[in-house]
Amino acid sequence: MNNALIKELNKIVGRENVLHTPEDLAVYGYDGTFVEGRPDLVVLPASTEQVSRVVVAAGRAHVSIVPRGMGSGLAAGSVPLQTGQLVISLTRMNHILEIDTANAWVWTEAGVVTADLQAEVEKLGLFYPPDPSSIRHATIGGNIACNAGGPRCLKYGVTGNYVLGLTVVLADGRILETGAGTIKDVTGYDLKALFTGSEGTLGLITRARLRLVAKPRCAQTALAEYLSLDDASRSVTAILQAGIVPASLELMDQTALVCVEEAFHLGLPTDVAASLIIETDGADREAVGRELEAAAGICRENGARLVKVAQNESERASLWKARRSMSPALARRAPNKVGEDITVPRSAIPEVVQRLRAISAQYGLPIAIFGHAGDGNLHPNILFDKRQPEQWATAEKMVAEVFAASLAVGGTLSGEHGVGVLKRPYLEQALGPLSIEVQRSIKRALDPENLLNPGKMFPVQNP
Amino acid sequence: MNNALIKELNKIVGRENVLHTPEDLAVYGYDGTFVEGRPDLVVLPASTEQVSRVVVAAGRAHVSIVPRGMGSGLAAGSVPLQTGQLVISLTRMNHILEIDTANAWVWTEAGVVTADLQAEVEKLGLFYPPDPSSIRHATIGGNIACNAGGPRCLKYGVTGNYVLGLTVVLADGRILETGAGTIKDVTGYDLKALFTGSEGTLGLITRARLRLVAKPRCAQTALAEYLSLDDASRSVTAILQAGIVPASLELMDQTALVCVEEAFHLGLPTDVAASLIIETDGADREAVGRELEAAAGICRENGARLVKVAQNESERASLWKARRSMSPALARRAPNKVGEDITVPRSAIPEVVQRLRAISAQYGLPIAIFGHAGDGNLHPNILFDKRQPEQWATAEKMVAEVFAASLAVGGTLSGEHGVGVLKRPYLEQALGPLSIEVQRSIKRALDPENLLNPGKMFPVQNP
Repeated sequence: MNNALIKELNKIVGRENVLHTPEDLAVYGYDGTFVEGRPDLVVLPASTEQVSRVVVAAGRAHVSIVPRGMGSGLAAGSVPLQTGQLVISLTRMNHILEIDTANAWVWTEAGVVTADLQAEVEKLGLFYPPDPSSIRHATIGGNIACNAGGPRCLKYGVTGNYVLGLTVVLADGRILETGAGTIKDVTGYDLKALFTGSEGTLGLITRARLRLVAKPRCAQTALAEYLSLDDASRSVTAILQAGIVPASLELMDQTALVCVEEAFHLGLPTDVAASLIIETDGADREAVGRELEAAAGICRENGARLVKVAQNESERASLWKARRSMSPALARRAPNKVGEDITVPRSAIPEVVQRLRAISAQYGLPIAIFGHAGDGNLHPNILFDKRQPEQWATAEKMVAEVFAASLAVGGTLSGEHGVGVLKRPYLEQALGPLSIEVQRSIKRALDPENLLNPGKMFPVQNP
Repeated sequence: MNNALIKELNKIVGRENVLHTPEDLAVYGYDGTFVEGRPDLVVLPASTEQVSRVVVAAGRAHVSIVPRGMGSGLAAGSVPLQTGQLVISLTRMNHILEIDTANAWVWTEAGVVTADLQAEVEKLGLFYPPDPSSIRHATIGGNIACNAGGPRCLKYGVTGNYVLGLTVVLADGRILETGAGTIKDVTGYDLKALFTGSEGTLGLITRARLRLVAKPRCAQTALAEYLSLDDASRSVTAILQAGIVPASLELMDQTALVCVEEAFHLGLPTDVAASLIIETDGADREAVGRELEAAAGICRENGARLVKVAQNESERASLWKARRSMSPALARRAPNKVGEDITVPRSAIPEVVQRLRAISAQYGLPIAIFGHAGDGNLHPNILFDKRQPEQWATAEKMVAEVFAASLAVGGTLSGEHGVGVLKRPYLEQALGPLSIEVQRSIKRALDPENLLNPGKMFPVQNP
């Protein structure tokens, strides 16, 4: 424990916002994965200026920093794994600073929970589309650091598409303002895009200006059931080729459907190979309805056994409840899961699912598959019991095979979770050594002493 | 003239693709601005590998490189202004390599003309939306290097929103592949976003994988006439707040309308303060029509004197002809123009237009204003005669005031043209010294010897 540093931090943020007892620290050692660590110190600043001063103090003490929102990440990017690390939790910076209705943006602190931000802007008829599953507890800052996605990102784009500007505390404590309050801006390098998705390795995002759109006035939702996953996949392509842009096109395979149905008895079909949830939305009720009907027709033409259009809000809510219950359902099925988010070309979904099933059959652990089919972004979840060491070892082997399967069909490791710690070993395989060298050179330029989230994202050198 | 280098380049690309006679070189010394330079050498490689070898040869000879497409840029970013520079023209790399209809992307060489690429993908029912005015002669590579926009970018987003992956030749000649063939990808830093808009200062973009969407089946267009520019601006905000997302919302002020009408007699109103061209598009003819009607109604409610909806394709084409004729019309009105592309918060359009008019009145040179009002992206064009030195000096002073006006209302220097040479002196004022320092550190990391387009984008140091 670094007493001089604690003293200095006490001065900056107040004694009550510097945590160093074991019980206080324990809470900051996990995220949404099974990876656990423990920080040496946790500090909870209340402003960008405090973050800046904390970073300067940590740098002077040669203590490295792990930035953190609510700890809902799915790649262990915010878990402090090295000894002696300082966690900077941004959860006290949870104020929305300004909502500009005429220009459709919100200026917010990084610690605001995404669902809270959405609720506030929706009161004014505005809409912040990105909707990761963790929306009710994840922070905007964490979403930006991971460039989070979600079901609605098919139509609306991912978090990065909404970032107009960021306030970033750099490794030396200086405060950088990037981007503008305008929709378009090409003055200089796109630094906001560089910090978005950089997982706390280049700077600490403390504030963001986010683009908003008009709140859709209505949405319609349908569930399509398929006896063949290929037919579901072909339907996805055919819908998009017809010029229909659904808000969401969500796939659940049989294993996923069975898990949810066994856990929550929602009346989901369990005898089908796959289902698609299709949602259209917009300003014009009639157009939204016609768009959904057209999509439903395409599903039928492409082999759907049944397409049920939700007739009212309660039926619609129950379809989404099925999709949103995936995580708790999987938790009931098995003590642990590794949830990946490989992303493949849409047309490769049938092939990659086939490969995932072969992996499951070979190693004997179930894989539930669901995800954002319109984007080719799938969440294969390997279900296992960490207490059984052989299962744990098997799951790890399966993860490597899952990534290999994605890369083999032209896919990538991650569509929306990021690299963190869990995908680090596979990064070079995915990107090649030159890309990593270029990225490292940028990291060195911005954080020469490797103080910001060291050991994350980049492969371990000289293993 | 560097004879050893010429000899080496001859070997790499063939003697006929190395230009060094004065008449050959002259053609590569201009762009879409009034700025002129002259390269020492021009080389026209036919492949990424040739580009790589040329970059290595130039580096060895300590000769700096200016990458170039068709020279239609509007910020002098591709004009060779330093003595002894090598221009690498990518115009021979004009092949579309693959169009994937199922996954909706095109893999193309950088030298393909944007309109040609659009025509090819449209044959297959696909659509590449970004539509800068230079579309018929600009190359995709140049569009990416400047992150070009256009009228349709209100609905569809700018060039950068379509870049899935890039092949980039780095300063040391190594060939970097960035991005993926997938819609979503968050494995590592977003290098493709960093190279997009970097104006040839970080690497040479030789190939791009671009996302496509389904081609809209129909479009409808209207012209709204306003006696007050404030009313036009309020209409823009009201349309977007109503949840209508037109493909385009194009503003022309009275000076712009008069210029076009005097030049081409298209029947445009010249007694109004401003007009808006509104276009909606999509897959469903009825919905597109209803959307346009709703937008037209909002224009009327917000003070439009008249809203004319084009009744057929020929009427629609003539509305767009008016907008597309801006450049030639301005050329008839005055021998020279400085066309800026300031971008302001939408709600600040009335104020910035008022400021622009005051600048015009103060200095005595006309400013025609038109642009993408939905994005707040305006093109104030200062009309002057370069042959009259005092006009030239006046125009330069006015440019500084135009930028100051944009920054004063929370705007930025450039929405879609880039910084190049012309906005360099104002960059620090717009971004602040820290942003420029961070950008310079990235430039140094990727191009330590400053071989790639030196003297562009960054402010001159120690002036």
